[in-house]
Amino acid sequence: MRYPKHLLKVIESLKKLPGVGTKSAERFAFQLITWHPAQLLEMAEIFKEIPHKIHSCCECGCLKGIEDCIFCSPERRSRGIICVIASARDAFAIDGTGEYKGLFHVLGNLLSPMDGIGPEQINLTKLKARILENNIQELVIALDSTLEGDATSLYIHQELGALPVKISRLAFGLPMGSSLDYVDGGTLARAFSGRSPMR
Amino acid sequence: MRYPKHLLKVIESLKKLPGVGTKSAERFAFQLITWHPAQLLEMAEIFKEIPHKIHSCCECGCLKGIEDCIFCSPERRSRGIICVIASARDAFAIDGTGEYKGLFHVLGNLLSPMDGIGPEQINLTKLKARILENNIQELVIALDSTLEGDATSLYIHQELGALPVKISRLAFGLPMGSSLDYVDGGTLARAFSGRSPMR
Repeated sequence: MRYPKHLLKVIESLKKLPGVGTKSAERFAFQLITWHPAQLLEMAEIFKEIPHKIHSCCECGCLKGIEDCIFCSPERRSRGIICVIASARDAFAIDGTGEYKGLFHVLGNLLSPMDGIGPEQINLTKLKARILENNIQELVIALDSTLEGDATSLYIHQELGALPVKISRLAFGLPMGSSLDYVDGGTLARAFSGRSPMR
Repeated sequence: MRYPKHLLKVIESLKKLPGVGTKSAERFAFQLITWHPAQLLEMAEIFKEIPHKIHSCCECGCLKGIEDCIFCSPERRSRGIICVIASARDAFAIDGTGEYKGLFHVLGNLLSPMDGIGPEQINLTKLKARILENNIQELVIALDSTLEGDATSLYIHQELGALPVKISRLAFGLPMGSSLDYVDGGTLARAFSGRSPMR
């Protein structure tokens, strides 16, 4: 396609978004062209301000605005429990369930030697310090049920097992609303071994 | 979700892109957060410059950069034929087939009384003038095979039928690589009535 040079730039730029290929980027770009300059300016400003208006909490690693971290605020959190998550995004999902009111700790990475992510990229020093300083009783590991998630969970358990803290991991089993016909063998096996008595 | 305020702004902003719902916008936003400020600045600049670097050709309505319109350039186009298209994007698709080397004319709209788009939004004055001034022999109507496309094609035929110009429309029939099992009745009927002798 012999698109105008800047249109190509717009398309290339949009292709950097996750899951956006050439076709989607073209569709976005052709719509952006029809926008009013003020709308484009507004979007540009919003993008530029991201680093200035969205921060990581230096205590737990969750995202926060300019105000205090909502996941660390003392009145809203039960302070004896920390949930370990891979990315700041997970905190919103877990918080949204309403099941959990404790603190969070964002790892930022999962162990993945193939991608060059080893134990040194998963710094547990801060987590250790938080456990000891805040008298934490339980650590809930809420990582992906993937190879990387499993490896990281085992690594955390091994590194922090000596601390006076109960370490648990999210339950594995059937997703809600699922039919046995469509559930894979691994999930079914975990659901079986983790069966619980009916009351 | 109790996202930081600016994160919500980023998500709302991304939802304005075509086909992007809350889930996709969230995915984009959480990736944008991880970008380097310089990358965000670059994207912002690219968006801001769209109105200054991408223009419509005042002759044919196709997109062009600061240089001359490639679809109007005299050395590359057969000048006796105009292809009528709904949007500037179609020119790239048709040009990409290599089947057509003539001029283009972008309507910008299709007749759609439901959306308040009547004949006055489809200004044929410029098209009429181009046909007469440039001694055009053929007009190829390349509009969608939808209700709106059909209505607009009929309207153009009715308005310009008196001019000394041959008016044709793109062929209707089976899409390439299609199986009869999956082709809808309307397409099959058009393919049947438009059947051509094998040579």
